[in-house]
Amino acid sequence: MTARTGRPTLAVVGATGAVGSVMLQILSQHADIWGEIRLIASPRSVGRKLTVRGEEVEVVALDEAALSGVDVAMFDVPDEVARQWAPVAAAHGAVVVDNSGAFRMDPDVPLVVPEVNPHAARVRPRGIVANPHCTTLSMIVPLGALHAEFGLSELVVSSYQAVSGAGRAGIDTLRQQLSLVAGTELGTSPGDVRRAVGDNTGPFPEPVALNVVPWTGTPDEDGWSSEEMKIRHESRKVLGLPRLRVAVTCVRVPVVTAHSLTVHARFEDEVTVDRARDILATAPGVVLFDDPAAGEFPTPADVVGTDPTWVGRVRRSLDDPTALELFVCGDNLRKGSALNTAQIAELVASEWEAP
Amino acid sequence: MTARTGRPTLAVVGATGAVGSVMLQILSQHADIWGEIRLIASPRSVGRKLTVRGEEVEVVALDEAALSGVDVAMFDVPDEVARQWAPVAAAHGAVVVDNSGAFRMDPDVPLVVPEVNPHAARVRPRGIVANPHCTTLSMIVPLGALHAEFGLSELVVSSYQAVSGAGRAGIDTLRQQLSLVAGTELGTSPGDVRRAVGDNTGPFPEPVALNVVPWTGTPDEDGWSSEEMKIRHESRKVLGLPRLRVAVTCVRVPVVTAHSLTVHARFEDEVTVDRARDILATAPGVVLFDDPAAGEFPTPADVVGTDPTWVGRVRRSLDDPTALELFVCGDNLRKGSALNTAQIAELVASEWEAP
Ligand SMILES: NC(=O)c1ccc[n+]([C@@H]2O[C@H](COP(=O)([O-])OP(=O)(O)OC[C@H]3O[C@@H](n4cnc5c(N)ncnc54)[C@H](OP(=O)(O)O)[C@@H]3O)[C@@H](O)[C@H]2O)c1
Ligand SMILES: NC(=O)c1ccc[n+]([C@@H]2O[C@H](COP(=O)([O-])OP(=O)(O)OC[C@H]3O[C@@H](n4cnc5c(N)ncnc54)[C@H](OP(=O)(O)O)[C@@H]3O)[C@@H](O)[C@H]2O)c1
Repeated sequence: MTARTGRPTLAVVGATGAVGSVMLQILSQHADIWGEIRLIASPRSVGRKLTVRGEEVEVVALDEAALSGVDVAMFDVPDEVARQWAPVAAAHGAVVVDNSGAFRMDPDVPLVVPEVNPHAARVRPRGIVANPHCTTLSMIVPLGALHAEFGLSELVVSSYQAVSGAGRAGIDTLRQQLSLVAGTELGTSPGDVRRAVGDNTGPFPEPVALNVVPWTGTPDEDGWSSEEMKIRHESRKVLGLPRLRVAVTCVRVPVVTAHSLTVHARFEDEVTVDRARDILATAPGVVLFDDPAAGEFPTPADVVGTDPTWVGRVRRSLDDPTALELFVCGDNLRKGSALNTAQIAELVASEWEAP
Repeated sequence: MTARTGRPTLAVVGATGAVGSVMLQILSQHADIWGEIRLIASPRSVGRKLTVRGEEVEVVALDEAALSGVDVAMFDVPDEVARQWAPVAAAHGAVVVDNSGAFRMDPDVPLVVPEVNPHAARVRPRGIVANPHCTTLSMIVPLGALHAEFGLSELVVSSYQAVSGAGRAGIDTLRQQLSLVAGTELGTSPGDVRRAVGDNTGPFPEPVALNVVPWTGTPDEDGWSSEEMKIRHESRKVLGLPRLRVAVTCVRVPVVTAHSLTVHARFEDEVTVDRARDILATAPGVVLFDDPAAGEFPTPADVVGTDPTWVGRVRRSLDDPTALELFVCGDNLRKGSALNTAQIAELVASEWEAP
């Protein structure tokens, strides 16, 4: 690797979106290691002014010119846009950190969670590093810490996914639906919520207000959804466990932001709750919040807007001394996307030498 | 057993509650096998008139007089009231069908789900038959059918429990909270929902609107909640599997009525999705609703107000040919309580001979 000097130039592609907006906040809060920061979106947004590091910056359109001279390019855009433009940015010499699903399972693209596999970010044959899906990210940091000690062998996971996982459209849909059902007696006879909501289901297949919907993503093989398969594949790749047993059921719930998951985790070795709690209490990026008798367990309403993954309800299976039960909760727009991308970009930027 | 003739006299104790109200509907819809139906509640409700079988009946107070001459007594009252009065009813010669948690784990009280273990209702040393907890009941019928074929060995269960599981107070609390959060931008910063809701958390330890709460019941041993332990103990007892491995995490969600659960069920024998679907499609009390590509999976909004347990998302674990993943959904006020109690009472009443 050739030494690079000076402060690297950063591009934020998709700066105007749900993830991009949180990214600009994070860039303003973290230590300022960047030279120029360029904000890029679709032609629709050209000329809009957004604030980052306390300064107004004008949005430019995504094209070859916008990408030239960029050292690190974050991509927070739809899959198909990333699939087309990330290789272009890499060809211009940028290291791409991609938040979309376009490259996650490419064997020549590392999938990185800095608390778990930071080393993987250094080997990037295509010049691209990928960020896992928000649901994977909402549980993988504590699981990585427990795996390092006990050796993970199986996961059974159920999700409680927030509507902002489906972007701004998801948030708008829940808010519209809540206005239709609040102050009514709905929720007590078959289909009454569906009739009240009508066609206002937005990106979801069923009403999500006063309801839970056991389907996220698109159909994959044998009855599994694409998001269930993503969590399986991505957990295996990030943890470096290609034969990890993983069974996931994804469910959308009427929460704005912060995904929750119940996790049944089985290990090679016997576990104890005390040791597991010690590990979780000291793992970077994890908050142990676990004293139900004192009202302490994580809920999305308290976790939203925070950086770490919160873990509560730590129990050892009553029938299996190698299994733990957990309830985990993380902000899907922070660690679930923008924060993890920023952390990867900072890891990459540490290859630059101070001038 | 001595032969009994004539139509049995029925008492509904707790006729004015959330479960009792649904019971009166069910008694009006089912085949009319009863002689007198006596409606009983606390002294607060004496003189109220309720409709059952199309007739107005006056509520009387729970005392010895009210229970004398009763053949079958349904108890839909709080645990402590059932604990005191069910033995009194039994001493007066009634067969008690108890919906509370007071007697479920008593070895001399059968715990009955008519589709699964109807025979158990015939042996009742204390004159009492118990009804399982609503969350157990929302999954046990399909599991009983699958167990009969494949032999169940392990359950990993996560719940999505409706607020009406906490009675009328639960419903009122969610509705109040929804009025406070609808039409706002809440759900995006830490604690904003909690601040808006204030002390209006009713029977729940945290706000339930725009939130999920991983705690139902009271603290049991080693970090488990009382409801998690109930589901474990009751599943073992109803299925007759005292060593079944069971790990449960209970979570409350902002749904009015109908509990949902994700179930990872492991069996002695290898399973196939086709055979599992055949069993579920023909099992009494079960509806198979499982074609996600066509938008078919159960959600509480469609299941509420219906009798069966709905099952969708049937998949075989990708790593374990003995395990199935399911999403199940059932009305906690119907099969989850009043309907199952009515079915047990009808089983017991079949011991009476027509005159
Ligand atoms: N929401 C989450 O929880 C989450 C979590 C992890 C990963 N992700 C992934 O992150 C990416 C962005 O998600 P989001 O939720 O932020 O979506 P979003 O709110 O819809 O924002 C999309 C962004 O992409 C830009 N864009 C769209 N088409 C473009 C084009 N042809 N050329 C250039 N820019 C274009 C948009 O710019 P304009 O404003 O100009 O249209 C906008 O900035 C997606 O791949 C998503 O899967 C999301
Ligand atoms: N909600 C569910 O999903 C569910 C499911 C399964 C089982 N259960 C169980 O069913 C029982 C009833 O639950 P619920 O949700 O219907 O509760 P609820 O709405 O609070 O109703 C309680 C009923 O008990 C009566 N009652 C209270 N104290 C009494 C006393 N001292 N003497 C006589 N009657 C008394 C009340 O009469 P007044 O109106 O006169 O006060 C009312 O009819 C509980 O044991 C509960 O655990 C509930």
